[in-house]
Amino acid sequence: MLTTFELSVRFFLQLAFILGVCRLCGWLARLIHQPQVVGEMIAGVVMGPSLLGLLFPAAQGWLFPEQSKAILFAVSQVGLALYMFLVGVELRSELLRARARSAAAVSVAGMVTPFLLGAAIGLWLIREPGMFGPKVDPFEAGLFVGAAMAITAFPMLARIIYERGLTGTSLGTLALAAGAIDDGAAWCVLAVVVASLDHNWIVAAKAIGGGAAYALVVLTVGRKLLAPLGARAEADGTIREPMLVFVLGLVMLGAWYTDVIGIYAVFGAFILGVAMPKGFFAQDLQRKIEPLTVALLLPLFFTYSGLNTRLDLVDTPQLWLVALVVLAAACLGKGGACWAAARWHGEDNRSALAIGALMNARGLMELIILNIGLQRGIISTTFFSIMVVMAIVTTLMAAPLFEWVYGRHARRQGLLGREQLD
Amino acid sequence: MLTTFELSVRFFLQLAFILGVCRLCGWLARLIHQPQVVGEMIAGVVMGPSLLGLLFPAAQGWLFPEQSKAILFAVSQVGLALYMFLVGVELRSELLRARARSAAAVSVAGMVTPFLLGAAIGLWLIREPGMFGPKVDPFEAGLFVGAAMAITAFPMLARIIYERGLTGTSLGTLALAAGAIDDGAAWCVLAVVVASLDHNWIVAAKAIGGGAAYALVVLTVGRKLLAPLGARAEADGTIREPMLVFVLGLVMLGAWYTDVIGIYAVFGAFILGVAMPKGFFAQDLQRKIEPLTVALLLPLFFTYSGLNTRLDLVDTPQLWLVALVVLAAACLGKGGACWAAARWHGEDNRSALAIGALMNARGLMELIILNIGLQRGIISTTFFSIMVVMAIVTTLMAAPLFEWVYGRHARRQGLLGREQLD
Repeated sequence: MLTTFELSVRFFLQLAFILGVCRLCGWLARLIHQPQVVGEMIAGVVMGPSLLGLLFPAAQGWLFPEQSKAILFAVSQVGLALYMFLVGVELRSELLRARARSAAAVSVAGMVTPFLLGAAIGLWLIREPGMFGPKVDPFEAGLFVGAAMAITAFPMLARIIYERGLTGTSLGTLALAAGAIDDGAAWCVLAVVVASLDHNWIVAAKAIGGGAAYALVVLTVGRKLLAPLGARAEADGTIREPMLVFVLGLVMLGAWYTDVIGIYAVFGAFILGVAMPKGFFAQDLQRKIEPLTVALLLPLFFTYSGLNTRLDLVDTPQLWLVALVVLAAACLGKGGACWAAARWHGEDNRSALAIGALMNARGLMELIILNIGLQRGIISTTFFSIMVVMAIVTTLMAAPLFEWVYGRHARRQGLLGREQLD
Repeated sequence: MLTTFELSVRFFLQLAFILGVCRLCGWLARLIHQPQVVGEMIAGVVMGPSLLGLLFPAAQGWLFPEQSKAILFAVSQVGLALYMFLVGVELRSELLRARARSAAAVSVAGMVTPFLLGAAIGLWLIREPGMFGPKVDPFEAGLFVGAAMAITAFPMLARIIYERGLTGTSLGTLALAAGAIDDGAAWCVLAVVVASLDHNWIVAAKAIGGGAAYALVVLTVGRKLLAPLGARAEADGTIREPMLVFVLGLVMLGAWYTDVIGIYAVFGAFILGVAMPKGFFAQDLQRKIEPLTVALLLPLFFTYSGLNTRLDLVDTPQLWLVALVVLAAACLGKGGACWAAARWHGEDNRSALAIGALMNARGLMELIILNIGLQRGIISTTFFSIMVVMAIVTTLMAAPLFEWVYGRHARRQGLLGREQLD
């Protein structure tokens, strides 16, 4: 057992090591035209049991002892909440109004289609041995795989949109809004699965009712109450410390509340960000919170999940076949359906393809939902690993696919901001 | 046992609660002319076993479960390291050169006198029952109390200097430099005490040799190697993300190293800050790191120690008498000696009094050294509490005393910056 002091000393070293490896992997990722954030995700896998732990098990165990995981996780969550808050702060809702119908259509299509395909896969695989837990019935299996397929990598989406210079564009705003809705909805479905397993429907009511109430109150009453902060900050010429502390306290409270009701901190922090005053206030907030969040805290989130990922469990041709089916269903259901919905609502083909490419990334939200499924005994480690393969492949596809179908053309026409490749 | 996820959810609530109580206590503190930072220290005591735990033990235990202490401590240490790094970055060493002899004299006097008085008290009290551990000999008792008396509240000093508008003044720089030297030296003495207890002199050699080598290398070779960063940032017009990540990684590495050799992360982070390029680079670094550090992370440090403090152990007239003697020796040895040394080296009386008042604060560094003494069985809980009383009183004295002997006059003459009372 390490003491509190020893854990804090080790934490300094972990931070230095994580920052170094993330930078290195980010640099390598950009060599193959992947965004920095994919590098950070890979950095996690590199530092985890799949590579560092395989080559130097003693060193890996010393650097990342079991006890320290709680610290890494808690800090990574704070970083993630702050980041998603900023994504909300930057969301230009006036851009959204013009495309509200597209956003709604894309998010509904991007939820329902992969959910149905996922449910079908769940109903098929529950008959195979070794995929689900013994107490899981077909209804629950279908619901769980449906929810897992329907998830969007909301933080990853936000990062890619930033790195590709899409922030503040109409397309980026549309994808973010659709991603946020899908994200909230997928957690509600997960709550239904958990409720069904526990035969306790209060869980589901809390998540769905509590989440809807939160979004409603924050975006109406909350927005009104927060508006004077903007005028005050403008008059002062800066957001002074007490106001910053107040805002940060609200972010933590919102993140805590949405975590407690079961729809995850990301959602609470994002919605609060959307409700914040825009203009000078939003810019100054970003100036003050973003540097340390992005440079120090956020990499922890993108690496933490990698630390817990094992890639060596998908090891027979049959399992690889299942993995291929899952992957195809995931891409068709999410990317394909979002493209179709966007086209249907009048987006041009390139924009629709871009939206499909971005929404298709599952990223680490997928890993979170899968870990819950594993912990609760819903899915086996084998099926867990198949889904992890799907999550990684869809995430790796996102940025190059986006560049190919949209980025390079749009950049040529000056429709995109500068790539944030520093 | 709480799961990792539950701990992270609770952490959000802890942060929100800590920020709220700190703000409230800071506001109350300013009503009685104490700085915000004293409010944060008191906030810790309020949230700890001395008040919240006494009134609502179940709620306090739920909000701050034992398991979560490791997370709070690790994050508070990162915040403290970042803050002390910034204090180093802001240190204007050119102001110091003119007053180098004063700084050296003040720091030596502020070390040696309280050390001797403390050693005398140690030699006196070791004959009383119930003050020291059974295996402690007079030599060790003298050394430990000497070191505990000689300590300076370096982070607290830095905060008060900032809040009183002394940053960048010649007086503030002098006090900071003297504080830094004393801080490093006191940890070396503590290492000697621990070495003597363990009969393992490598501990002491590591602390003293490693600390001196670190300071030497970072301030010469390190400063040279870091200089190009300043030019690069100026050419770019900003510190770009990879450079910020690099600098943050260095801070974590420096903090880790000085923690490991036994002279505490504060020292390593501060020295690294001093070695950073000045001018635009320093300003931009401060702009990027300070807001979140000061508003979110640093309050954790000032409250954490309060969470572990119990004020109900000093409960007989004899013990209060001992506490009075200790307090008088502490003020005379530190405040008095620093004043005398500054006068001797040609500072005017007001400035000398101001330096004495500032250096006299023991703050939370004292609590850290005392906790080590308690954990290692050097001192009893009774003597621990007496020393805590001394630490709190000297800290509460610092700001009002400073205002009385110096601040109000200097402010009238326009020698001080704006008070940072926002």
